[in-house]
Amino acid sequence: MNKRILLAKRPEGLPEESTWQLDERPVPTIKKGEVLIKTEYVSIDPAMRGWITDKESYLPPVPIGAVMRAACVGKVIESKNPNMKVGDHFAGLSGVHQYVVTNGQNWVQVHPDRAPLPKYLSVLGLTGRTAYFGLLDIGQPKEGETVLVSGAAGAVGSLVGQIGKIKGCRVVGIAGGKEKCSYIVNELGFDGAIDYKNEDIRTRINELCPDGIDIYFDNVGGDILDTALTHINRNARIVICGAISQYNSKKFKGPSNYYRLLTERARMEGFVVIDYAKDYGTAYQHLGKWLMEEKLKSKEFIVEGIENFHSAFLRLFSGKKLGKLVLKVS
Amino acid sequence: MNKRILLAKRPEGLPEESTWQLDERPVPTIKKGEVLIKTEYVSIDPAMRGWITDKESYLPPVPIGAVMRAACVGKVIESKNPNMKVGDHFAGLSGVHQYVVTNGQNWVQVHPDRAPLPKYLSVLGLTGRTAYFGLLDIGQPKEGETVLVSGAAGAVGSLVGQIGKIKGCRVVGIAGGKEKCSYIVNELGFDGAIDYKNEDIRTRINELCPDGIDIYFDNVGGDILDTALTHINRNARIVICGAISQYNSKKFKGPSNYYRLLTERARMEGFVVIDYAKDYGTAYQHLGKWLMEEKLKSKEFIVEGIENFHSAFLRLFSGKKLGKLVLKVS
Repeated sequence: MNKRILLAKRPEGLPEESTWQLDERPVPTIKKGEVLIKTEYVSIDPAMRGWITDKESYLPPVPIGAVMRAACVGKVIESKNPNMKVGDHFAGLSGVHQYVVTNGQNWVQVHPDRAPLPKYLSVLGLTGRTAYFGLLDIGQPKEGETVLVSGAAGAVGSLVGQIGKIKGCRVVGIAGGKEKCSYIVNELGFDGAIDYKNEDIRTRINELCPDGIDIYFDNVGGDILDTALTHINRNARIVICGAISQYNSKKFKGPSNYYRLLTERARMEGFVVIDYAKDYGTAYQHLGKWLMEEKLKSKEFIVEGIENFHSAFLRLFSGKKLGKLVLKVS
Repeated sequence: MNKRILLAKRPEGLPEESTWQLDERPVPTIKKGEVLIKTEYVSIDPAMRGWITDKESYLPPVPIGAVMRAACVGKVIESKNPNMKVGDHFAGLSGVHQYVVTNGQNWVQVHPDRAPLPKYLSVLGLTGRTAYFGLLDIGQPKEGETVLVSGAAGAVGSLVGQIGKIKGCRVVGIAGGKEKCSYIVNELGFDGAIDYKNEDIRTRINELCPDGIDIYFDNVGGDILDTALTHINRNARIVICGAISQYNSKKFKGPSNYYRLLTERARMEGFVVIDYAKDYGTAYQHLGKWLMEEKLKSKEFIVEGIENFHSAFLRLFSGKKLGKLVLKVS
């Protein structure tokens, strides 16, 4: 049988158990040109909260009753496609289900002998590319500049900070709790950490970013974005990558200090990683090289069992995880 | 005697009569290298509200007790500087006073035989350059794109719309009241106008910008900025030029729809015209040419008498004026 997580209804606020429905269907059969992939790991990402909202966005909303959309890695277990052999592993934007049939379009082969499979959902997957293109293309870091990143112990934020260090920047991260702050400084090499749960952010930014902020990479929105804006330098770049603190709100809190964009001639810009598809190869090469050289470290927080999808998903919002959240489904 | 408007105290909210002090001093004398300029017209600009706030910004706050800062045009009436002859006219960032002594630094000669003096404070002055660089450098308009501009009957907005038309864009303006809306469409050639005092902005943007907004040029902030964001296209540019609706608020209203920057891969960017000083010549040439060719029209709303500075200043916020607000002081 094929266990699947369906979107049962659109949530208001924080999703509840009843947002989802666990369903079982017979494992599907394949036609000529298709393969059957057994999903091994499913990526759990903040963006998923946006996908289940009934709002126009960069991808259409997941329909009610459909399998929840998710990035996955899995193994081909049946093939009628000469390009995808049984036993090969592939990654793709698929869904929270144990089996999926595909003709292979938009799936890319991955290599468990080169890196553990969950890494293909984190540093070697969309997460890594999000950090890579967001910081390098939108943020445009220059050596010696100061980068502040929120959600700094999270999947994207932890990579943004490390890539910032590779590029010769001073990097300060904002994270929740002592453990995460210690992790990003002592294990990932950030120059400083701000514990937003226990410290005054404004005071700490002043202490840790004495030359101001040239790039603020925002994963959280809300008050942290607003406070960061008060410290930006002339010609600063604010990279809008996410707003985890706002996703469950009916209305986002707008940054009342947005006018600092004028006084500092600064720029606030959003991006969506899928626009960079043609450059994925370059990103993959760099990220892979940095990973091999141990200039980049990534932690995956793995939850076992497709039945635990909901409780795993909630960790995005509670912050009860470190690094990239991944669900092992098979 | 030299009548001067001094900043008496920092206002909270809308400035009051007591924010200013009218003072009289003997006309100053000049030393070698200096000239005495008799101010003829003073520019009254929204930016002045920012200059009297005790906040770090792109210019230092006007000190309490000092002459209020303002752009001016005036005539040299005494000269000990061989480069500035008696009878010549100059424009500069000076103050609300009838006479000023200067060595000429940062003053530029203007020519009343080529254009009426108040034009050197509007289309041929900083106002024109603000529209020019804001739209062209930050907005980067392309032929066929849709430009939405707020404060569209105002000094900067009315020029932004006309420059947009020159560049082949569809241009829609937001202004307060039927007279202003009629003016920008029938006299300035805008493709459409939205009367924010009497119409639903969201509905009207939908009607008048059927292909969405590629550039939103914001002079007002607040709800209009927030609503405009819901209609932006992929890769849109939001030019932050001003926030007249917010200047008297203790805290600006942040745009809660800022997250559309992410979903639409769009950019919100501020600028300050004085950064473009090295390119003023180019702007002046283009603006002057367009003015001669009648591709650009500008209206100046002239208030007489330095004593009326305060009531003139309030028109910025009440909207009781059309075009560029200028005070005739001599």
